[in-house]
Amino acid sequence: MTETVLAVLNQPSRDAAPHDPAADAFTFAGPLEEHIQVQDLGIIRGDGVFETITVVDGHPQAVEPHLARFERSARMLDLPVPDVDAWRRAVEAVCAELDPVREAFVKTVLTRGVEGAERPTGWVYAAPSGDSTAARTEGISVVTLDRGYRHDVERTSPWLLQGAKTLSYAVNMAALREAARRGADDAVFVSTDGYVLEGTRANLVLSVGGRLVTPRTDIGILAGTTQADVFRFAAEAGIETAYELITLDDFHAADAAWLVSSVRQAAPIRAVNGNAREIDAELTTRINEFLLAREV
Amino acid sequence: MTETVLAVLNQPSRDAAPHDPAADAFTFAGPLEEHIQVQDLGIIRGDGVFETITVVDGHPQAVEPHLARFERSARMLDLPVPDVDAWRRAVEAVCAELDPVREAFVKTVLTRGVEGAERPTGWVYAAPSGDSTAARTEGISVVTLDRGYRHDVERTSPWLLQGAKTLSYAVNMAALREAARRGADDAVFVSTDGYVLEGTRANLVLSVGGRLVTPRTDIGILAGTTQADVFRFAAEAGIETAYELITLDDFHAADAAWLVSSVRQAAPIRAVNGNAREIDAELTTRINEFLLAREV
Repeated sequence: MTETVLAVLNQPSRDAAPHDPAADAFTFAGPLEEHIQVQDLGIIRGDGVFETITVVDGHPQAVEPHLARFERSARMLDLPVPDVDAWRRAVEAVCAELDPVREAFVKTVLTRGVEGAERPTGWVYAAPSGDSTAARTEGISVVTLDRGYRHDVERTSPWLLQGAKTLSYAVNMAALREAARRGADDAVFVSTDGYVLEGTRANLVLSVGGRLVTPRTDIGILAGTTQADVFRFAAEAGIETAYELITLDDFHAADAAWLVSSVRQAAPIRAVNGNAREIDAELTTRINEFLLAREV
Repeated sequence: MTETVLAVLNQPSRDAAPHDPAADAFTFAGPLEEHIQVQDLGIIRGDGVFETITVVDGHPQAVEPHLARFERSARMLDLPVPDVDAWRRAVEAVCAELDPVREAFVKTVLTRGVEGAERPTGWVYAAPSGDSTAARTEGISVVTLDRGYRHDVERTSPWLLQGAKTLSYAVNMAALREAARRGADDAVFVSTDGYVLEGTRANLVLSVGGRLVTPRTDIGILAGTTQADVFRFAAEAGIETAYELITLDDFHAADAAWLVSSVRQAAPIRAVNGNAREIDAELTTRINEFLLAREV
């Protein structure tokens, strides 16, 4: 067992010829060695998709929803469709090799491959997660940032790839730096027509009059795997849930708010644009206990 | 000499410690070997910048404008500032190693490096260019595609990184696929408020009443190195030039239009959204002869 683990997919997609059904799905490789060529379109064009899966006590969570979104993102980019069975086996194998730690993460990455080679590149990487205790208990401060798009571009302009989880995340990382410049921990994107969208790497969930509400997923945002499980928690707890168009005013008026994502799970928002807001510590604890105990 | 050449920068930036001024600027490496780790932020976040430089008869063109834009892009992403002297030496060395071909290209890439390592990754890769004769003589067909942004987002929302040449090019590549789906060779992006912006990997130049006109460079587009040299050609030829806000109507009404870029140089536009338009064959030839003969 080792601290970080890497499995390189031998055949990331059944679409990419030649496909040998008898070949091993993956090969373990040195995580700190070099595995990517400089002409891989994943690096020179950010042309690929990824998922980040939480691993608790060696057990990967929400694997099927992550792999389903991975496949959906790949289709949105006209990438060879990932061979989900091979990826699932690689995820499980990498988790089994990881040093026992309370919380870790697995990242699955599929790129279009080396320019001209017509063969996708794929790997699964796992490492221990950083400590999210402070974010989960004390909460995080966020700023709201313009994403520059209307809320309907996913439908009008699919080539903008909104709603796909691509490797082209430079804007997300720049928004995170802008948040830090403004003294905040994270950013929440807002559409040019005034709707709250999502975090830089997380979904937004609000508590409104006893209900849990999240932005509709057809407005150019990712359908969150953790958000879906927060709603599963709510169903079990008898809390009503809804997907809605949420304005900035709705966000400010909510009783409580969280950014929810793999790895960090539910981080209560304790300030927006420098203005403190209430956090619901009791509900936050219940949500995170549910999320960290997930068996599937 | 070899068909493709790769030089890996030993110290891509003087900002990244430790900086050893006595070390070699770069090391030649096998272009088809693996040089990038899977946790390089260039690949998992598209977090880096690049330039593509034309090489004609072994001579790289517009090197200083390219390196200046490379540095500008790096600053826009808060990357360690590239050590331009080291990059220039690597570009020259790579060109000197390349097999003699009429036209080649050099790509410079700077990434934020492996996550947590605080050390940027940099390389210079060179290869022969594909044949652009048909695009230069017969012309190309384009479609206009919504970029989703207003023309002023570079000023209002700098975290959107418009105007930086980043590795997060998945949208550009998706736009190119959308153009192909519509039977066209390339796409021209248009702002949500109706201004013509740029191609997926090129700048737009119009001929309007005897003048050459290009979109203003403060509207979230790249300042083109080839476009600048087309204007240098115009100055020498006594043709007036201007940077303007150009509407879709202006584009349709222009006497002639080109997408200009490194590698392909000036490609006359012979159809927009399926509607044929005049090309100025004589002026196109003069422009490309000028571009291909550039000594700097």
